[in-house]
Amino acid sequence: MKESDLIAAIRSRVTDPSGVIGIGDDCCVWTPSGQTCLSVDTIVEGRHFRASDEPGLVGRKAAGAALSDLAAMGARPIGAVVALSCPARWDGLAVMDGLIAELRRHGCALLGGDTTGSEALVISVTVWGERASARFLTRSGAAAGDLLVVTGPLGGSLRSGRHLRPQPRFAEGQWLADQPYVRAMMDLSDGLAADAPKLAEASGCGCLLLPQDVPVHPDVPEMADGAKAACCDGEDFELLAAVSAEQWPHLQLAWPFPRQLARVGWLLDRPGTFMEDRQGRVVPMTWTGFEHA
Amino acid sequence: MKESDLIAAIRSRVTDPSGVIGIGDDCCVWTPSGQTCLSVDTIVEGRHFRASDEPGLVGRKAAGAALSDLAAMGARPIGAVVALSCPARWDGLAVMDGLIAELRRHGCALLGGDTTGSEALVISVTVWGERASARFLTRSGAAAGDLLVVTGPLGGSLRSGRHLRPQPRFAEGQWLADQPYVRAMMDLSDGLAADAPKLAEASGCGCLLLPQDVPVHPDVPEMADGAKAACCDGEDFELLAAVSAEQWPHLQLAWPFPRQLARVGWLLDRPGTFMEDRQGRVVPMTWTGFEHA
Repeated sequence: MKESDLIAAIRSRVTDPSGVIGIGDDCCVWTPSGQTCLSVDTIVEGRHFRASDEPGLVGRKAAGAALSDLAAMGARPIGAVVALSCPARWDGLAVMDGLIAELRRHGCALLGGDTTGSEALVISVTVWGERASARFLTRSGAAAGDLLVVTGPLGGSLRSGRHLRPQPRFAEGQWLADQPYVRAMMDLSDGLAADAPKLAEASGCGCLLLPQDVPVHPDVPEMADGAKAACCDGEDFELLAAVSAEQWPHLQLAWPFPRQLARVGWLLDRPGTFMEDRQGRVVPMTWTGFEHA
Repeated sequence: MKESDLIAAIRSRVTDPSGVIGIGDDCCVWTPSGQTCLSVDTIVEGRHFRASDEPGLVGRKAAGAALSDLAAMGARPIGAVVALSCPARWDGLAVMDGLIAELRRHGCALLGGDTTGSEALVISVTVWGERASARFLTRSGAAAGDLLVVTGPLGGSLRSGRHLRPQPRFAEGQWLADQPYVRAMMDLSDGLAADAPKLAEASGCGCLLLPQDVPVHPDVPEMADGAKAACCDGEDFELLAAVSAEQWPHLQLAWPFPRQLARVGWLLDRPGTFMEDRQGRVVPMTWTGFEHA
């Protein structure tokens, strides 16, 4: 499909929100209602998905992974633009259909983009959003002694293909951002073992993970080391939050969602990453998270 | 260089504007002061630049080409995020240094990004800006009978390497957006022969180009067909605007910039693209603009 035909087809599939200039000009234009947050996320053929994956699912993953960054701030999505670098052997329109459907599912408007040819499929999605509550929740507001909690079971995402269907946790993220005793948040893309230290460091802390307490996703095979898979597999797109420890019982009681909210570690007043081993001893963390090729 | 080291090096090179959350969280956060415009632009190795091009110039091109879309709306730049898909054989930090320097030259803050590995270097730059004057100027406000004007000489950009140093025309774009009798604007990336019909179509018009009146850039070799090169070569990043015809003399007198503002065509009340040939006859346009591989 020619680039101009692809753009025309994409354009015919989207409706601009009122008062907004969408696809077709040099820029899109909208009027933000206040503080705005924005993120870009890229997926690359052979690294984040396979040449044999279904185009619609690849598009869905590109959108879902980007939206997850908005959910991790407690934001609600507003708009998106897509940079699609697409070889002729990929059905670019099918990719975009999956992508647009995923954006729409979360109330996010596709407002523009850029298409180029390439040797491998590369999709960069820029998304932006606004506050759904009193504040955006960053990675840096936590303190030593806070509990680390996750919004669902982890592990097995790449093996099972679940990574192609990320579920941005918007409702949970917005609710958590509304609780004053939740102090920091991020989404899990590289595995708890890699991501928890990032939140800890941004808050000037170290962390102690409790692998035996991490809920293991049913996608992790029974024969595998479940705790290690849950900490290291990556691409879960659940939220990781830091909670003032004495408010943890209150948070558990107030939590209005069917998903499990699980305690998976502590923030420490010293740098470094530690874990509790099977015998309950605190040892330096030796596991690493998932690193994309 | 490892991804985490590259990110740390990039982070050490930028300073966040006050009140803004920049690189290092799931999203960047800023407070827009009003209507906001945003664009994404991608350049791909082997299509928009060569494997042998200087990394810093490639980064500069990525930023400059994206910023040119803001200039084309009459906007002033605010922020940018970058999606860098970078093979190990490219010096990613040198690419980013060129990119950051170009953003800084135009007062645009680098506020975030995403880095991945890849087989070929792909750089997507998302930029956003705000109104510098009363309005953003789109492609769609022009009318039949309007004159088409360009902000400088065209042609020879790819051949000479000038395409690696795009000059976003912010001052000219903002000034043009301030003149009520300038009715539409875009930037020229695919050549006048390809881009003028886009502006015309967005405004519900056709167009007649005057190749003999298009200023030819000194980068076009003397032996070449200058008029054709100026209409078709692409990657000029000058602005194309539509001006109410009876105000053209007034615009020429008021134009405060040293660059040449040149009349290159007319908008028509019938669809299609036409050109005046060397004998002054109006014939259907047969030239096409530049299409990237």
